Amino acid sequence: MDNKVKNQIRSIVGKEHCSDRKEDLFLYSYDAMNRRYLPDMVAHPSSAQEISRLINLANEQLFAIVPRGAGTGLTGGSLAVDGGLIITTSRMNRILEIDPENQTAWVEAGVFNGDLQSAAAGYGLFFPPDPASMDFSTLGGNAAENAGGARAVKYGVTRDYVMALEVVMPTGEIVHTGSAAIKSVTGYDLTRLIVGSEGTLGVITRLLLKLIPIPEAVGTMLAAFPEISTAAKAVASIMSSRVTPSTLEFMDRTAVECVKEYLHDDIPSDVAALLLVEVDGSPSVVEADAKVLENKCLEAGALYVQSARDSEEREALWTARRALSPAIMKIRPLKINEDVAVPRMKIPDLITGIEELARKHRLSIVNFGHAGDGNVHVNLLLDPEDKEEVSRADHCVKELFQLVISLGGTLSGEHGIGIAKAPYLDIELESSATDVMRKIKQALDPKNILNPHKTFDYDKTSLERELSPDNG
Amino acid sequence: MDNKVKNQIRSIVGKEHCSDRKEDLFLYSYDAMNRRYLPDMVAHPSSAQEISRLINLANEQLFAIVPRGAGTGLTGGSLAVDGGLIITTSRMNRILEIDPENQTAWVEAGVFNGDLQSAAAGYGLFFPPDPASMDFSTLGGNAAENAGGARAVKYGVTRDYVMALEVVMPTGEIVHTGSAAIKSVTGYDLTRLIVGSEGTLGVITRLLLKLIPIPEAVGTMLAAFPEISTAAKAVASIMSSRVTPSTLEFMDRTAVECVKEYLHDDIPSDVAALLLVEVDGSPSVVEADAKVLENKCLEAGALYVQSARDSEEREALWTARRALSPAIMKIRPLKINEDVAVPRMKIPDLITGIEELARKHRLSIVNFGHAGDGNVHVNLLLDPEDKEEVSRADHCVKELFQLVISLGGTLSGEHGIGIAKAPYLDIELESSATDVMRKIKQALDPKNILNPHKTFDYDKTSLERELSPDNG
Repeated sequence: MDNKVKNQIRSIVGKEHCSDRKEDLFLYSYDAMNRRYLPDMVAHPSSAQEISRLINLANEQLFAIVPRGAGTGLTGGSLAVDGGLIITTSRMNRILEIDPENQTAWVEAGVFNGDLQSAAAGYGLFFPPDPASMDFSTLGGNAAENAGGARAVKYGVTRDYVMALEVVMPTGEIVHTGSAAIKSVTGYDLTRLIVGSEGTLGVITRLLLKLIPIPEAVGTMLAAFPEISTAAKAVASIMSSRVTPSTLEFMDRTAVECVKEYLHDDIPSDVAALLLVEVDGSPSVVEADAKVLENKCLEAGALYVQSARDSEEREALWTARRALSPAIMKIRPLKINEDVAVPRMKIPDLITGIEELARKHRLSIVNFGHAGDGNVHVNLLLDPEDKEEVSRADHCVKELFQLVISLGGTLSGEHGIGIAKAPYLDIELESSATDVMRKIKQALDPKNILNPHKTFDYDKTSLERELSPDNG
Repeated sequence: MDNKVKNQIRSIVGKEHCSDRKEDLFLYSYDAMNRRYLPDMVAHPSSAQEISRLINLANEQLFAIVPRGAGTGLTGGSLAVDGGLIITTSRMNRILEIDPENQTAWVEAGVFNGDLQSAAAGYGLFFPPDPASMDFSTLGGNAAENAGGARAVKYGVTRDYVMALEVVMPTGEIVHTGSAAIKSVTGYDLTRLIVGSEGTLGVITRLLLKLIPIPEAVGTMLAAFPEISTAAKAVASIMSSRVTPSTLEFMDRTAVECVKEYLHDDIPSDVAALLLVEVDGSPSVVEADAKVLENKCLEAGALYVQSARDSEEREALWTARRALSPAIMKIRPLKINEDVAVPRMKIPDLITGIEELARKHRLSIVNFGHAGDGNVHVNLLLDPEDKEEVSRADHCVKELFQLVISLGGTLSGEHGIGIAKAPYLDIELESSATDVMRKIKQALDPKNILNPHKTFDYDKTSLERELSPDNG
């Protein structure tokens, strides 16, 4: 990217809102995945109009534009694998409107999920999608990756709460999709084409989000199981009951070890798996439903079921759950987090299969995740210095994906494909399906300007641009 | 379409499964809208493979292919406005699998919604989307139009229950979209791009549908209001409460008149509007919730609230509701049914505006629909012989759409655009948005073979092909 282009970028966003200084670029070279790529420049536009002008410039000068929220993604979706310009939504962070009567909110893409939660709570409302990163991930990023979370088992994912979007297309047009009416079938569903497209089909600048009333009461319990299989049985029995839990989180023994400092009571050593179960609704319903699910756990073979006695205990359980991902990294410096999902009832087969893979490849694997959705986060713990271990992990990951697909599952339940899983896409998708996706990308982004090599067509050669961990 | 082509079609599906006899073609010249277009041929393929071969032939020989379920659509989506070949899914009507543990069903596109409901009920499960046509509309058609229904206010629309699809693309490839895992973000969301695309982007041949447990109890009540405005106030107050009704249907006075034969009790003459309200869940919850909503209605100014004393009374209320559309046609031979939706709280403004339009254009308009979704079916009653009245109706419809858009609403909540609303699309969508849709259509259907002139680019000249009501 030459200086002429950089100056044009400066003139569009203002030179105080962009930088090409290496120390600044490093801050945008990574996300929550373990790879780093230096962009040529980073800019912080303030509006869809500025982004449109940047994209028009990119189409003239042929450089890549990579949209970035808070950079909390786990699959490299916001990394500049081809260099180019990273544009953040950090200056587009206003909650524009909360409409308590229609139960909707208009927000700019850079608003943190957690900030919307706080603002909505003032009206007795909440936004159901709750990725573990919710306090520091943006709603634009949540939508671009179609983020899920622990509440998805009852309330669904981000896709289900995005009613309308303002999007800058890869050719610079500013498009408004969707409707403020709850039901709309006017034309193609561009909203849901953009949601989950990882910034490859458009830059989300504003979102109209659906909010719902905060349940009056919540019941939280922790069920401990002697084997993973009995925990899986409990999951099956809970999900085929009439009571839909608002949370059904699973942790294996190692996961529990990682966070036991957060858990008030010590976990007996004969505990092989924990389920964090929550129900919500009116107080009487919660009490009845909690009893039903407690019994399902005990019938399935739980050693004990412990209910959170107060909001402090509930908070402790949640802090533990949310701290899992970072806590695991304390054990080993490198963590490969795979975010697979299978049909709910296949969880036992998945867990058994993962245990076999861990033995076969002599790897330490930690499993936790959203059991109610069949969405398990499989964490391979590695020492990056041990090249032989890393290469065993590569084989293990590929076999994990083959196992998942053989169970009718999917490579990613909620983290997206980004660059992390792009090389494996053909394990799940037929070429006829990726061809359709390519045709859409080609039709909307003929010069492949917007977030190239994400989702599919990940070009191995761009690995050459990757910074080594010690670089810089 | 010449005989050579017709013979190739016969050789693909078998001559006993297709016809070009005028008396057969007439049966496929209309749907539930008031227009008729003769196809050149109709075929009943038995598989995605046969449809793929038909589409390949169409791309060679350049004729239009129009997919058709049961022809219950209200916007002309299954009409052969350009002639060509209509393909029905009538021979693809098998329920392939019901999986009670994962709560899913694999069905062929030609399965009637009602038949899936019956089969699922055997497992204590149901498929929430319930268009009024459910007993005789197909699941493929429901998905192609993204059908809604009375339960959408609590359970959502067809889009929310389609997990995966088998689709034949406009260039003949057979593509599998989506996943059997509840959460999947692997690649673009082709499933939701196809759902609601009205057969313009692909022919749906198989669907993986999400089922949910049948609620243990249902409470049904009928609330009568002295003015439409007080009914609208009740809707607002119900929807901002913590209780989500499973149904919140609205009928104005004329609508009530049309179906009063179905209603056991006579409706007093001072009733200007009715709300049909339902709650479901566990018996205790239903009782409590019903009480809450009954009070909301009375507080808002209901004259009385009558609860269905038994399932027979409940059935009567539902028969009445489902019979509305046909019953209205008894009053006047021609009915223009517009299916607009506005943000919930704008319903009072919408109803008031419609009353003004009716006065201004001297038309009799009947309103009913899904008040909880802001989705109102606006029915203009006409005498087709009275050309002057028909032309007043045309002006009224256009002004209705302008009113709806000024209220932040949409042209169609659940019936689709088809040909009925295609001419008005630009009232709602910016050209930048329809351009994106056209690019997608062009990329996936370069020869414009599949259901041309639906959703957008409706060509007025194709009106020349329209049959006059008395023709044939």
